[in-house]
Parts: sequence; C-alpha cells; structure tokens
Amino acid sequence: MKKKVITVSRQFGSGGRSIGKEIAKRLGYDYYDAELVEKVAKETGFDPSYIADAGEYAPGKSMLSYAFSSAAPHGAGSPMSASDYLWSTQSRIIAELAEKGNCVIVGRCADYILREREDCLNIFIHASKEYRAERIVELYGETDKATVKRLDEKDGKRRVNYKYFTGREWGSTENYHISLDSGAIGHDECVDIVCRIVEN
Amino acid sequence: MKKKVITVSRQFGSGGRSIGKEIAKRLGYDYYDAELVEKVAKETGFDPSYIADAGEYAPGKSMLSYAFSSAAPHGAGSPMSASDYLWSTQSRIIAELAEKGNCVIVGRCADYILREREDCLNIFIHASKEYRAERIVELYGETDKATVKRLDEKDGKRRVNYKYFTGREWGSTENYHISLDSGAIGHDECVDIVCRIVEN
Repeated sequence: MKKKVITVSRQFGSGGRSIGKEIAKRLGYDYYDAELVEKVAKETGFDPSYIADAGEYAPGKSMLSYAFSSAAPHGAGSPMSASDYLWSTQSRIIAELAEKGNCVIVGRCADYILREREDCLNIFIHASKEYRAERIVELYGETDKATVKRLDEKDGKRRVNYKYFTGREWGSTENYHISLDSGAIGHDECVDIVCRIVEN
Repeated sequence: MKKKVITVSRQFGSGGRSIGKEIAKRLGYDYYDAELVEKVAKETGFDPSYIADAGEYAPGKSMLSYAFSSAAPHGAGSPMSASDYLWSTQSRIIAELAEKGNCVIVGRCADYILREREDCLNIFIHASKEYRAERIVELYGETDKATVKRLDEKDGKRRVNYKYFTGREWGSTENYHISLDSGAIGHDECVDIVCRIVEN
C-alpha cells in the first residue's frame, strides 16, 4: 500500500527534522512542524511558544496543576489539565491532516496518534551522542558541555512525554517501521531510503 | 568507511536470519550462524544443541549453578559459570571472525561484542506479532496459539540474555544503525537497503 503519511520521530540533534523536510520536498508531500504548532495554537488559544514546548515535552507541574474545568470543552465533567487539553486538540488536528494525506509530520507522537492507519510509515532518526553534540555545536555555536546536557534533557523530556501519553517506550524499534542512525548512514542516504520505500 | 562486518539481530519469526543470509550472498560475504555454533562447540566441548540455545537465550538456573571452577581456563580464580564460560569463548570467536572481515553474523550479541569496531554495521529486524505468528505457522505448521506463546517466550529470553551480558536493552534503536520492520517493508527491500548502504 502506498504510504500517504510519514511520521518522523527523532532524537534531539540527529537532524531528523531536516531529513523529514527533505523527504517531503522530494516526494512533493506537505510538511508539518511549525505549521502544526500554529494550527494548534489557533484552536486552543495557547501561545505558540508554549505549544512548541509542551506538545512534545513532558507535562510539567505547572501544566498539570493548571486545571481549567470550566474552560475545557468537556464542560462540567472531570477537570482536564492543560496538557490533556493540548493533547486532545493536537491529536484531532494530526488525524485531520493525515486524512488529507500525502504529508510528513515531525514529532508530536504522530506515530502513536495515527497507529490505526495502514497508510502510515513511521520513521525514527537517531545518532550517537558524540555526533549529535558536534552537530549542535556547529549549528548553534554552543559549548560542548552545555550541549551534551541539553541533549540529555531534551530527549529525557521527549521520552517522558511519549510514555505519559502513549504508554509506550520512546525509541523502541517496535514503534517504527524504519529506524536510522543518521550519523553512521548520512542524511542524504536516510532521505533516499525512505523515499525509495514510499515510491516502491 | 566500508562496512566489513554486518551484525543482524532479530525478533523471532521476523525473517532476520534469511535476510542476513541473503545479504551475505548478495555481497559475497561469509555468513555465520550455524557455523558459529559449530566453532564454539568445538572449542568449549559443549554439545552444539546446547550452545544454539544457551548462547542466545537467558542463562537458566541449571546453567548458572553449573559452576566448574577447575574446568574453566581461569584455574584457581573465582568460579566461572557455564554461561560465562560460553560467553567468553563466543566473544573471542566472534572477534576473530570480524577480524577476518567481510562477513554477516546473525544473533549472539555480536553488535555488542564488536561495538568498538568502526567497520561494523548493526542491523535489527523486527515485525508485528501478527505478521510473525502468521509466518511461523506457514513455515512450521504450528497452531496460532502455540506460536504466539513461543514468540513471546523466545523474544523474552533473547531480551534477558542481551541485558544480562551487555547491560543494554535489546531492541532499543540506539544499539543498531538500521532497524527495519520486515513485515511492513518486505524482505527483499530490507536486503536492498542494507546492501545499498554497504556498497555506497
């Protein structure tokens, strides 16, 4: 079956986002990442910068305690936390985008949200810590020490967030159809592999 | 760098072994699986059928209690269990085979044993439980129920064994350069992807 939706999950610094963008460009698919954040922001009323962080990272204390039972669409039912509200809106929007088809969606647990769709190809991009740290230093000019700390923090948050909402282990091979080490294989080759599979 | 050694780890029933064999054939590489068992058998004095099981599956009680401090090459030092003795011999043989180069090694924690080699490409082949059960029933004519139970048992043992000897999580993307869902992608495509990476 032709894969109409490609989800890309990635370790911080692995280049997964730019690989996803290149795949979309090559296949002529829509690409959702920042656009997705904008859409969710508009619908939820949250600030885009808040969503960019909270939609992918672990629900913090401030989010969980921010229960707004009256503001939530569920009305008088059980109180809903900000993170649950964001998750439910984000899930609906991702499902709608997938329904339109021919798109690449980066991050935001899309692999899990779309798990029932058979036209979905789930990719995971990772790389060694050394490779990612070097890449981040090059891209953002950070110090080595701060970078490695940030890698651990960002991935740790993604892991906790994924587990919280999906019950699954982030980065476990079973969640993805293809997992690639972008440092060992090279970014172009990663793009080639995915495009070939979709086109075949 | 040209990859001279390809290690293939795989979920039971995913077809990883035959994919590994086909990769070796296509690249003109040596293939080690049953041959490896024979080699280890000869050196350790164990029965090949015992090694085929114990070299990849979790050390059982009977193995761990089978301490032979005098039979082990370490002589008068701390007592060595049968499984530790098997592991150390197996590790040495795998390192020797890798040194000869141009080979595919299936299973037996080779990805971990060879982790310091830069000319090593580590592959993990997996597939959904449904796909694997169907394939096993087709290949061995087992009943569905017994098959699913066997899948869980075999993979559970591989997981425990891998953790016991390597301290790592079996099937975690980070241990492998490429992880592929053979059911979703197809066996031939899996072979193509790996051969292309090695040849490029």
